[in-house]
Amino acid sequence: MRTPGRPDVGYGQPVSHESHVQKKAQAIVPETTGFTLWHTPLESQRGAITPNGLHFGVHHNGIPDIDPAKHELVIHGLVERPLTFSVEKLLRYPMVSRILFLECSGNTAANALSPFARDESCQDLYGQVSGSEWVGVPLRLLLEEAGLGASAKWAIAEGADGGSHARSIPVSKLLDDGMLAFYQNGERLRGAQGYPMRLLLPGWEGNANVKWLHRLELTDTPAYTKDESGLYTEFLANGDIARFSFLMDVKSVITHPSGRQMLHEKGFYEIAGLAWSGHGKVSQVEVSADEGRTWALAELQGPVLDKALTRFSIPWRWDGKPTVLLSRATDERGVRQPTRTQWKERYASHSFNHYNAVQPWRIGSDGGVENTYA
Amino acid sequence: MRTPGRPDVGYGQPVSHESHVQKKAQAIVPETTGFTLWHTPLESQRGAITPNGLHFGVHHNGIPDIDPAKHELVIHGLVERPLTFSVEKLLRYPMVSRILFLECSGNTAANALSPFARDESCQDLYGQVSGSEWVGVPLRLLLEEAGLGASAKWAIAEGADGGSHARSIPVSKLLDDGMLAFYQNGERLRGAQGYPMRLLLPGWEGNANVKWLHRLELTDTPAYTKDESGLYTEFLANGDIARFSFLMDVKSVITHPSGRQMLHEKGFYEIAGLAWSGHGKVSQVEVSADEGRTWALAELQGPVLDKALTRFSIPWRWDGKPTVLLSRATDERGVRQPTRTQWKERYASHSFNHYNAVQPWRIGSDGGVENTYA
Repeated sequence: MRTPGRPDVGYGQPVSHESHVQKKAQAIVPETTGFTLWHTPLESQRGAITPNGLHFGVHHNGIPDIDPAKHELVIHGLVERPLTFSVEKLLRYPMVSRILFLECSGNTAANALSPFARDESCQDLYGQVSGSEWVGVPLRLLLEEAGLGASAKWAIAEGADGGSHARSIPVSKLLDDGMLAFYQNGERLRGAQGYPMRLLLPGWEGNANVKWLHRLELTDTPAYTKDESGLYTEFLANGDIARFSFLMDVKSVITHPSGRQMLHEKGFYEIAGLAWSGHGKVSQVEVSADEGRTWALAELQGPVLDKALTRFSIPWRWDGKPTVLLSRATDERGVRQPTRTQWKERYASHSFNHYNAVQPWRIGSDGGVENTYA
Repeated sequence: MRTPGRPDVGYGQPVSHESHVQKKAQAIVPETTGFTLWHTPLESQRGAITPNGLHFGVHHNGIPDIDPAKHELVIHGLVERPLTFSVEKLLRYPMVSRILFLECSGNTAANALSPFARDESCQDLYGQVSGSEWVGVPLRLLLEEAGLGASAKWAIAEGADGGSHARSIPVSKLLDDGMLAFYQNGERLRGAQGYPMRLLLPGWEGNANVKWLHRLELTDTPAYTKDESGLYTEFLANGDIARFSFLMDVKSVITHPSGRQMLHEKGFYEIAGLAWSGHGKVSQVEVSADEGRTWALAELQGPVLDKALTRFSIPWRWDGKPTVLLSRATDERGVRQPTRTQWKERYASHSFNHYNAVQPWRIGSDGGVENTYA
């Protein structure tokens, strides 16, 4: 450069050369319902933090525009003192910060449902998971201030969006590590993430982390709301149903290389990806570059945090021949990801939530990378 | 809300209600030189990650627009094999990720230079420090590939900006933990942070982390470039000068409450802030709410990481009377921040880099918060 550059601005944006890196709306649901799925471009992300502009969004009723000066949180029901909090008041409470993953219950549904492996990208197949540093008020403080009744076992958490998205949450989770989140990655929540406040339940499925939270009603039983009796209930192979299946299980995916990418030449590549578990820390990730015959331990990028995205990587030299790459994560309980066959044995054929099977990526002789089931 | 909300978009933005949260250009240098200072709004940030849009920027020659397809890194000088790397090739190398602070050598210069405490905000006084997850290629790999000559002790790192900002870096630092960074908080670098690549030297002053890096020349002595012989050299009180003073020392600041904020009523507040050290982890932060007479240990928000911003907090009840709040951090060496008097005793009266003294914020009887020196 032989000339001075442009000046900076008050709120910076990505360079034009990277303008192709965008969230992507999935077309599987009609736009008219207000229910939309926006996927994170995981194959463009390195590290364990997702930029706020690229965080995935599953919106049941679009994104409401809420004036923080008018928004309130009400805590009522089986409490000694029903309380109403303004946003301004809540911002004075003690806050905690945690780096956590957030994943939609339905992430990777296409691999669960489709009888053949759809030739889609990592973003399309896995883009309903993101990682952030969340900062907010421990819900324990607010519940203690309200005074929990002896029979208060559940809290109905309701959002202020058009459809009043609501989930029944066990009080034990709120007291343990539930957070009323106000900040994400250093700034106030984006509208798409629940501004001015959302519920944050470490390790639990996305929709239970109710956005635009305005009401917590303490009860002795769940409310069996539309979304918890419908969309977010799982049918098992043995005819049972799994309700209130909040925890996201151990899972991993290779993001580099991944679906629809192309290896342009033989030689060195770093296989890298993300692993996570709602049950705690990832303890190890194994990678196979020979269709699952042999496995090697990948390196985990520290700090390996509880219920957070964990980056793994391992060096690899491609010899130009077709093969299949796989990763399988184990969490600190010692539980390892199932294969797709094992996962399908547990769930009914039309079930698709909580899919966490091992992902095989097929490398063609032309270097093309494609989704496969084995 | 009784109507569906708006749809999401491919790259999200902050809500309009938070549009006042912006980087702020400092007016102390004339715009015409191309040298500009853009400060992070620390008092609007919670947690240890700074959003990329709000990361501080000190630009010596504005922000160049670099086409990544044309950009190259050259490693030459005292090496066995001079090498040229395209961006595409470098993106295939193994990468590491680290959450780190980055601070300008001149951060908080106003408190060093001004004979009276300027009534300014935390952003104005402290906004040249930010925290990010950086991902990139260990420089050790590239230097080993080039083959370091026995007499190669320094590397002249040069940027591709209009003024070719350059610093001489000890090879030992590059081999230890120097990184060629491509990603920041999950996406490719912003233009203001060195797109398509920058040097990242954990714990070292910002300007040594050369942005838009395009050349590393291995030499046996420093180049004594303009910026290392001029702006970034410190004058000491005893007449000596400190050159190549790369490490940023242990430092902390209370961000809540901080300069020019207002406590609107008596009662509970959380005192919270940030601490960091270029020498390693923060081991403790003490807070005083009585002008420094007594001190209490603040809680550190984990994970406490090496050379990263560390959030601290402590509960406080304001009785409505005037007082002074202070924080003082100690790092894992056992070294504690100096007072302003101690700092001024070490440096010449016109010196202003590497200011890391304890910050007192005066609380007035009206609840106003103001910068003070004691």
